[in-house]
Parts: sequence; C-alpha cells; structure tokens
Amino acid sequence: MTALCDRLFRKTINGNAGGILNGNKGESAVASRYATRRCDRRIGFEWTQEPVPTLGEGQILIHNIYLSLDPTNRGWLTEGGNYLPPVAIGEVMRGFGIGVVEQSRNSDFPEGTFVQGFLGWQDYAIADGTNLYELPKDPSIPLTAYLALFGFIGMTAYFGLLDIGKPKVGETLVVSGAAGAVGSLVGQIGKIKGCRVVGIAGSEEKCRWLKDELGFDAAINYKTESVVESLQQHCPDGIDVYFENVGGEILDLVLSLINLRARIVLCGLISQYNATEPVPGPYNLSNILNKRAKLEGFIVLDYFNRAQEALVDLSQWYAQGKIKYRVDVIDGLENAPGTINKLFDGTNQGKLIIRVSEE
Amino acid sequence: MTALCDRLFRKTINGNAGGILNGNKGESAVASRYATRRCDRRIGFEWTQEPVPTLGEGQILIHNIYLSLDPTNRGWLTEGGNYLPPVAIGEVMRGFGIGVVEQSRNSDFPEGTFVQGFLGWQDYAIADGTNLYELPKDPSIPLTAYLALFGFIGMTAYFGLLDIGKPKVGETLVVSGAAGAVGSLVGQIGKIKGCRVVGIAGSEEKCRWLKDELGFDAAINYKTESVVESLQQHCPDGIDVYFENVGGEILDLVLSLINLRARIVLCGLISQYNATEPVPGPYNLSNILNKRAKLEGFIVLDYFNRAQEALVDLSQWYAQGKIKYRVDVIDGLENAPGTINKLFDGTNQGKLIIRVSEE
Repeated sequence: MTALCDRLFRKTINGNAGGILNGNKGESAVASRYATRRCDRRIGFEWTQEPVPTLGEGQILIHNIYLSLDPTNRGWLTEGGNYLPPVAIGEVMRGFGIGVVEQSRNSDFPEGTFVQGFLGWQDYAIADGTNLYELPKDPSIPLTAYLALFGFIGMTAYFGLLDIGKPKVGETLVVSGAAGAVGSLVGQIGKIKGCRVVGIAGSEEKCRWLKDELGFDAAINYKTESVVESLQQHCPDGIDVYFENVGGEILDLVLSLINLRARIVLCGLISQYNATEPVPGPYNLSNILNKRAKLEGFIVLDYFNRAQEALVDLSQWYAQGKIKYRVDVIDGLENAPGTINKLFDGTNQGKLIIRVSEE
Repeated sequence: MTALCDRLFRKTINGNAGGILNGNKGESAVASRYATRRCDRRIGFEWTQEPVPTLGEGQILIHNIYLSLDPTNRGWLTEGGNYLPPVAIGEVMRGFGIGVVEQSRNSDFPEGTFVQGFLGWQDYAIADGTNLYELPKDPSIPLTAYLALFGFIGMTAYFGLLDIGKPKVGETLVVSGAAGAVGSLVGQIGKIKGCRVVGIAGSEEKCRWLKDELGFDAAINYKTESVVESLQQHCPDGIDVYFENVGGEILDLVLSLINLRARIVLCGLISQYNATEPVPGPYNLSNILNKRAKLEGFIVLDYFNRAQEALVDLSQWYAQGKIKYRVDVIDGLENAPGTINKLFDGTNQGKLIIRVSEE
C-alpha cells in the first residue's frame, strides 16, 4: 500500500511537474515544491506548483540552490514531531538549505546574497529575513561546506561531543553512525582532543575511509562483525564517551562496556525512525545506574547563539587539514523523497545534499 | 525448586541455629551468620556458626543490633554484582548495620561505642575500624533513625535529588517507590525546596500516608489507577524532575510527560531486580533526545565525603518537623532472608530493619 502511495505521488510528479523544475530559472513565475500528504496512515509528499506572489515590503525571494537531507527530517513527518512540531499536512516540507536572493525588498538581504536557513523542499522561497543567515563570500570555501561542516552539522558534532560528552585526553570515544555527516566529524574532533576513537559503520568502504582518511583508531563494520567482541578488542580500557546516532542494539552493547561516569550523548536514533512498532530502550539501563553514567539528549538548535565558538575552531582545524568531510550531492529537487532513504539504508557516502539549482 | 532451596536453608537454620541467636549475648563464643550459597542456579543463604576468634591488635568485636535491608542488597547476589562486586559464594552476606563495640583492642573504638558500617548478616562482626563510623550518643535520636534518615538512606535522597535532580522552586517532581525509605524522603525534600511533588506507590494506605502525613501534593496508586492519566491530572505543567526507584513501565509513562531539560535521577530499578529475563529499557528513549533531558545514574557511596552537608540539613529539617520517616522493624537475624522480600512485594511499611539484638 505504501509502495502504491509512492507510485501515486511519483505519477503526480511525472504528470504535472516534468520539465518545469529546470525551466523556470530566473523567471520565478512558478514555484515547485513538495508538500506533505497523508496516504494510508503514512505521510508522503505531493508535488505542487503555484505562482510566486509579488514581494511585500521587507520580503525577499530566494532561489534555493542546495537542500540538506538529514535523519532528523524523518521526525518532522511523525504525528508528534520531535523537538520541532510536525509539518502540517499540505504544508511545504521543512528543510534546511542554501539559496541566493533573487529579488529583494529588504535592505539586509540585497540581491545576490547567499543565505542559509529553513528554506523548505521547494525551488523558490519567500522570506522576511527572520532566522535566515547570510553566508560569507569566500571563494576558497564551496557552498556545500556550509551544509557539511560549517553549518549545523559541524555544530552538532562540536557541541554534542565537547559540551555534552566532555571528552578528556586519553579517554576512549565510541561513535555510531560514524561515517555519517555528524559521526565522521565527531570522531575527528575526538582525535584532535586526544581520545582513542572507535567508529561503528555499515560497510567496509566506510570503515576504510574512517581509518585511512580520517584517522580513527579503529572502525567496526556492524554488518559483518560481532560488535561487542570488536568493541572489547578496540576499547581495552572501556568506553568513556559514546556519541549515539543510531540507538537499538548497539546502544545496549556499548552500555555493557562503559566505564565509571561515562557520558552518552544522545544525538540521534536513526535505527528506529522508520519503526512501525514501539522500539524498546536499552536492556542494560541498570549499567547506567551502576556506573553512575549520564545519558543526555542533545539538539543543536539550543547552541545557535554559540555558533561562533564552533565555527572558529572548525575553520582552523579545516585549514590545518585536521578535519575532512565528504558530500553526496544528488541533482534535482524532484529526487528528494527517494534520496532521503539513503540515510536509512546506509547507502549515502557523506553529507547528503540535493542540488536544487546550479550555483 | 527455589522453594525447595528455601526450605533446605530454613531446615539448616532450624537444625543448627535454634536458640543460639538469643542465647549468646555477651558470651561471644559463637557467631551466627548467613553466608551465601548457590542452589539451583540461584543464590540463597545458608546459616552457619563459628567460634569468635580472639581479637588481634587493632581489632574490635561488634555486637550487631540493627541490620538494614535495602533493595540494593539484591544486586550483590547477582553474578556481576552492581556498583559493588557480588558477595562471593560462601562469604557472609554483605549488609549495612549498627552495632556496639563489645570488646576492643583499638583505642579509636572503645567498648560501648555505637558504630555503623558494613557489619554483615551476622550477630557478631570483627573489624579493624576501617570504613566504620562512630555514632553520636544523643538520647533524643533513636538508633534506627541512623538507618532511616541520618545514614545513607537520607544521603541518597538528599544528594540524589539536589545534586543530580537539581529541582527549582515551582517545578514538578515525580517520585516512584514514593513510600519507600528513600522515596518518602525525596518527596519531603522536594516540598522543602518548593516543588509540586507527586508520588507513585502501591497501596491506598501508602498514598494516604504520603498525602496526609508527609505533605505530598498528590499520590498515585499504580496498582489501581491509570498512571499516565493520573500523572497528566496531577502534573498539569509536565514533569521537570523524576526520581526513579522502580524502572519498567512507570519510567516510560513519565518519559512521555517530561518537560524540556528534565532531569531523571536513576537511583534504583527495583521492579527488575528479581527479573529472570532481560528487561527492556524505556520505549520513550527518543523523548530524552527530543526534550534534551538527562538521565543520570546515582550511587550514594560517591557522596560519603560530603555526608556532613546532608546531615546538617536533615537534622535541622527533622528538628523543625519538616521531615518524617517510619521504620518497619522485624525481630531476629534468622528472619532476614524472608523479610527482604517485603521490599519487592511492596508490603514493607517504612525503612525495613532487622533487629539482630536488643539495644
């Protein structure tokens, strides 16, 4: 039934939207977008188009360039939302992205300004400048770096690890979802801070990348290895900090090996975002008690007022070659609904981004 | 089979130990005790007796008076122990208690000194003074108060709530196991600190005691009420601090109602100490993430160096009539194995204590 829903949506796209996405650049007479739609108790997407309204005083028209696809987007499609309210049925799907101001009636954002913010799953966005951030014009930094490193992804890794995880020199840090956009940065920051870093990822290629390119001390392929045996092998002194992106069984295995006063940064639970049945929490909860450990939820939105701290360090580390990232850019807004699944089946190769239009 | 084990142990008691417990006061020729014993994959107790050895230099002989029975004792009988290593098979069961020095070759502990410490499930203990604490001689304070309020029970409630839970004036505090020794103090300290306090307990009598005697704002009988509906009713502003003594389903229900940055003090998981199958953690783990909440394990042993802070406040509140406790004293060391079950079936009425000998 879900597949049927997907086909129905796809058909709508093919029927109504073909060619328009690539045809209206600069004209801005028609904006294309994905609005949410309920289908068979699930929420899917519907391709809609509408004329771009005339700008009011203070408004700007943004031509979107890159759309960031992130695991957290999934939570915005659930009945209760997550840390943000759900996207109401019929509204444009919420999404973070980068665009360029094409028309402006707001002197803070003149035409040609590059901006980032919640621009939505659409090719044109109207905004009044609230919660919109101007990007610096630095030709040495590709625009995608603002999504993969210098934006909220980098801040998530930076504040989640340093502010919640509080790693100390010589401690052992384990990261799940280690080859993901956030996880790969967390591990590298852990190395910079003097930790032994062990990553958990889902393919040999990802594990090689973590060890050979990013300098992780060890990487565990959870699809082919016994995670608990590999953790025991690679964490001979136990686990002091665990950066959790995944949830489920891996959290339980890690909990069985934590040290006294371990810190568990609960940043994501991607393994259960698509679950249709309730997912049990860790069976080893008692070890949090016995080890006086701390499990703390973390949302990067709370740290936007401290962004500068992260950006100063991340820029410096990037310039020094101490921190790397990779992006997985897919062309075409129309591919967003299909592409976001790459985050959940593990086939993405770096920060997942939709190219909505050419830079 | 377990029942058979229990009967076997009981038979040993009746056969070997009858009368001796009450007969040897002052003689100290024979010490009676419960040692641990493996039976049918479980760990039980075996009554043993042995002559009291002659004191070496620096040693004291303590005649035990009160033995504290606590949920945490159960964890010491599991294969891995909990925050303390398990009691080895054949060793005297570990237990906290109060006794009086009957013979002394240690000038720090002269004869007649009242002491508390890990005296064990036995009527006489030999000690060298390490980890043993002298009790003040204050005729206005009954000895049992040192187990129910001024000892580690009071410190558990005090530091767990204030240091980990960090309640603020006007916040809502929920306590599970609220009529237990720790829970009842937590709620009263919460009231002193200006919180709205809601307790969860297992009988009408306990709920009445919490509300009418201890001043809780509300008490929920989890055996007869819908806990989630009652929590919604009694916590109209959500839950800011949860003091967890129980685990299981109640933790899950509370997690569904926590506020932003809620603190969950993981002090005990009594509902699962006797479990024979692995017990799943909270299904609502994702709410810890979404609400940036913190779940932290807590063991009072870590706070012994700060005992004075707790004792000063607890003494003052007690003198002011702001804090009350009740004790459930059962006569006879021989009854310890049967009595400890009162903690797990909820039939205890206050701090559970075994009277090993007359004061």
